[in-house]
Amino acid sequence: MSDGSSSQIVAELREWIEAAPPGAKLPSTRALVARYRASPVTVQKALRTLTAQGMVESRPGVGTFVRAIRVARPNDYGWQTAALGSPENRIPRLSTALRTAPNDVVALHSGYPDRELLPERLVRAAFTRAARGEAAVSRPPAAGLPELQAWFAAELGADARSAVAPPAPSDVVVLPGSQSGLSTAFRALVGAGRPLLVESPTYWGALLAAAQAGVQVVPVPSGSRGPDPDELARAFERTGARALYAQPNFANPTGAQWSPALADQVLDTVRRYGAFLIEDDWAHDLGITADPVPLAARDDSGHVVYLRSLTKSVSPAVRVAGIIARGPARERILADAQAVSMYVSGTLQAVALDVVTQPAWRTHLRALRPQLAARRDLLTGALREHAPTAHLEAVPRGGLNLWVRLPDTTDLARLVRDCETAGVIVAPGDEWFPAEPTGPHLRLNYAGPNPGAFPDGARVIGQALARDD
Amino acid sequence: MSDGSSSQIVAELREWIEAAPPGAKLPSTRALVARYRASPVTVQKALRTLTAQGMVESRPGVGTFVRAIRVARPNDYGWQTAALGSPENRIPRLSTALRTAPNDVVALHSGYPDRELLPERLVRAAFTRAARGEAAVSRPPAAGLPELQAWFAAELGADARSAVAPPAPSDVVVLPGSQSGLSTAFRALVGAGRPLLVESPTYWGALLAAAQAGVQVVPVPSGSRGPDPDELARAFERTGARALYAQPNFANPTGAQWSPALADQVLDTVRRYGAFLIEDDWAHDLGITADPVPLAARDDSGHVVYLRSLTKSVSPAVRVAGIIARGPARERILADAQAVSMYVSGTLQAVALDVVTQPAWRTHLRALRPQLAARRDLLTGALREHAPTAHLEAVPRGGLNLWVRLPDTTDLARLVRDCETAGVIVAPGDEWFPAEPTGPHLRLNYAGPNPGAFPDGARVIGQALARDD
Repeated sequence: MSDGSSSQIVAELREWIEAAPPGAKLPSTRALVARYRASPVTVQKALRTLTAQGMVESRPGVGTFVRAIRVARPNDYGWQTAALGSPENRIPRLSTALRTAPNDVVALHSGYPDRELLPERLVRAAFTRAARGEAAVSRPPAAGLPELQAWFAAELGADARSAVAPPAPSDVVVLPGSQSGLSTAFRALVGAGRPLLVESPTYWGALLAAAQAGVQVVPVPSGSRGPDPDELARAFERTGARALYAQPNFANPTGAQWSPALADQVLDTVRRYGAFLIEDDWAHDLGITADPVPLAARDDSGHVVYLRSLTKSVSPAVRVAGIIARGPARERILADAQAVSMYVSGTLQAVALDVVTQPAWRTHLRALRPQLAARRDLLTGALREHAPTAHLEAVPRGGLNLWVRLPDTTDLARLVRDCETAGVIVAPGDEWFPAEPTGPHLRLNYAGPNPGAFPDGARVIGQALARDD
Repeated sequence: MSDGSSSQIVAELREWIEAAPPGAKLPSTRALVARYRASPVTVQKALRTLTAQGMVESRPGVGTFVRAIRVARPNDYGWQTAALGSPENRIPRLSTALRTAPNDVVALHSGYPDRELLPERLVRAAFTRAARGEAAVSRPPAAGLPELQAWFAAELGADARSAVAPPAPSDVVVLPGSQSGLSTAFRALVGAGRPLLVESPTYWGALLAAAQAGVQVVPVPSGSRGPDPDELARAFERTGARALYAQPNFANPTGAQWSPALADQVLDTVRRYGAFLIEDDWAHDLGITADPVPLAARDDSGHVVYLRSLTKSVSPAVRVAGIIARGPARERILADAQAVSMYVSGTLQAVALDVVTQPAWRTHLRALRPQLAARRDLLTGALREHAPTAHLEAVPRGGLNLWVRLPDTTDLARLVRDCETAGVIVAPGDEWFPAEPTGPHLRLNYAGPNPGAFPDGARVIGQALARDD
């Protein structure tokens, strides 16, 4: 028998095998010998070849079977390159702030508070209650559970100046997290190709959402006291932008809280240019030595679109945010939100509402302040002692982060690597800049796990900095 | 004293009130008399004016206070019209299928299964367990809980032909519901302004997501046996589209399930034009007299991007879907999903995984078939009896809906109104057409509440139809 016959048996059996379900039994050797008019040796050789190719497996004494899980052959997805084309918008890679870290490192990079800072007992009790409730098996209205809409409106209303009409529950759209809120606000209020003013530096998640929405980001310099109002006016004038994205309270990363005078000035400017202020009140529950004062509480003319998230203060599992907008803007936002996500899980909404309406929620928030203060001061002190060349422009009065300017000569990428090698994860400040960074920065989170290791972390940063001298 | 003095007091007090916090006490009448050198009568008049304006309230014997909740003055949001401009994409209004209905009507319009068809006990138990678990207070990886990714991959892998390499868990991106999946797939794989082929009629939620993503929808005629393959090839040829969106199993609204031959033909066409098939396997768990066979199970070349949702079969509160894509397409999808929603609540993912990995889940799905069959047959029979001019082209072998062609002369809007007046809510078929409808249709859901009222519903439809004769 020639080798050709074995190849032919292989080729014909392959065809049969490819059409067969996994686990199907091949004909017996005797049957194959008869069908292909080949010798048993040739048939055995063909079966060995198919076994080696991962197409079949033989179970001695039982038979030969089509393999359930195939040895994967490498696939060429090159054709996708043509179908996809180059991306319309370059979406930046995921930020360092989202990295999960092993337990044995000092994690100063995260954007999220540690579990010990969350109202864990309240959250678990709320999920347990929600498991028994109506929300677990029903569909809530598209704009959100009415009681949760009312809560978001009342929270902002409580801060509202008396001359300002408080928002109505119907002004609120509940969204599956603040990232969705940013994404929807940028698409609905700005739109692809149109300019959006942003603080520089500003929250990387907003830059991510802006890139995905294809809006054209225009940086306005901002620092530990907030944005420069003259630069802001110039940017509106020059670009014709009709929207500004900002975090007026405990900005991420700078920690800035705008003064009442600056707040008024920015509001005036926004109104003068017929623009929206998309106010991201991300740290509303995270005041330390100051209370957040939403700019939206000073406005009822529809200029401020207000975003408040509960993910950071309630639980990362409770992806619920509220966006408050008045006038046609609210309709535009709701239409976008529905097209993207239809509605938000009623259970998550019920849990959020349950947690924030418990008396223990207020107790938790009060207890949180000294905890955040102690952590902030511990890391601040440790940096002063062990990394004296790392300059902290201002100690933030709320939020979760220190924004640290490093000496000009710092090789930031090398420093981040060196820290990581020594077991300390830090986030390079570059990710918070919409354009080229103005200098080497670190954003250090003091709300991560194991604050006892902050001094070690500061020491490692100090040593890595010393290497640059 | 002139009336002018009273006006002046009002004006000055207004200014003071507007800067004051709600609930602040106004100076006493005596103090105001002294400050404004006015008579008590004039001061009282000014206070009455402020009370009438809703600025203050007087509590007899206590004093006058800044009102906490103001009488809202109508705001003019006209300026927003200029800032927003006309919308880039006209997003259709919400579908009838999303309407919530009172209990005393016959609701044939919904897109969701009634609560009695859900695994309620499993869902509640899973939420209770999740309340105690790690997921309630932690953040899952951006692409999803690895165990849930593995489950989605294994489900599709179980259907995979032996010659097809099954998907890997890393090919799966977990998303907050299938609407997000559609939205992300259309943005990531097609992009604004580019053509996307869709069946006509097709799922209105997909048309909504397409409108929001700004993709240009190209209808391909489809019926109770699926799309016309020649029309499909012509549409690819003519438009240069690189993607087709379709529901090959129990399509919404037609109920069509593609034959294996059509599936192969469409796959060949999609491959020939170097295109993606975005396969929406919405009714995977809702087979009645047939099992769904995903086209993705026939493809490992990256041409089929597969979307599977658990919202309809597990619970509307469990907004969790999985999208399976191979090659660069998966990266493009993940980047978009992260920019839009960062990650999906770990609790919802844990609940979804818990439910679908219980042995009772399989039992539930088996029990669901005869329930759906009975409801489908009840409504089908009732229509034949009471609304004989409503033509049902095919009895669906899975899914939740009947697709009914009405006589050409039917005034659809009037019929829908007449039915509603008589306590029967139906969804006009127009919402499922990407362009002009080919004729008057109704989509009737047989999975809604109270199937005992289906005959009444059919009778009302029949009477409304009779009025058109």
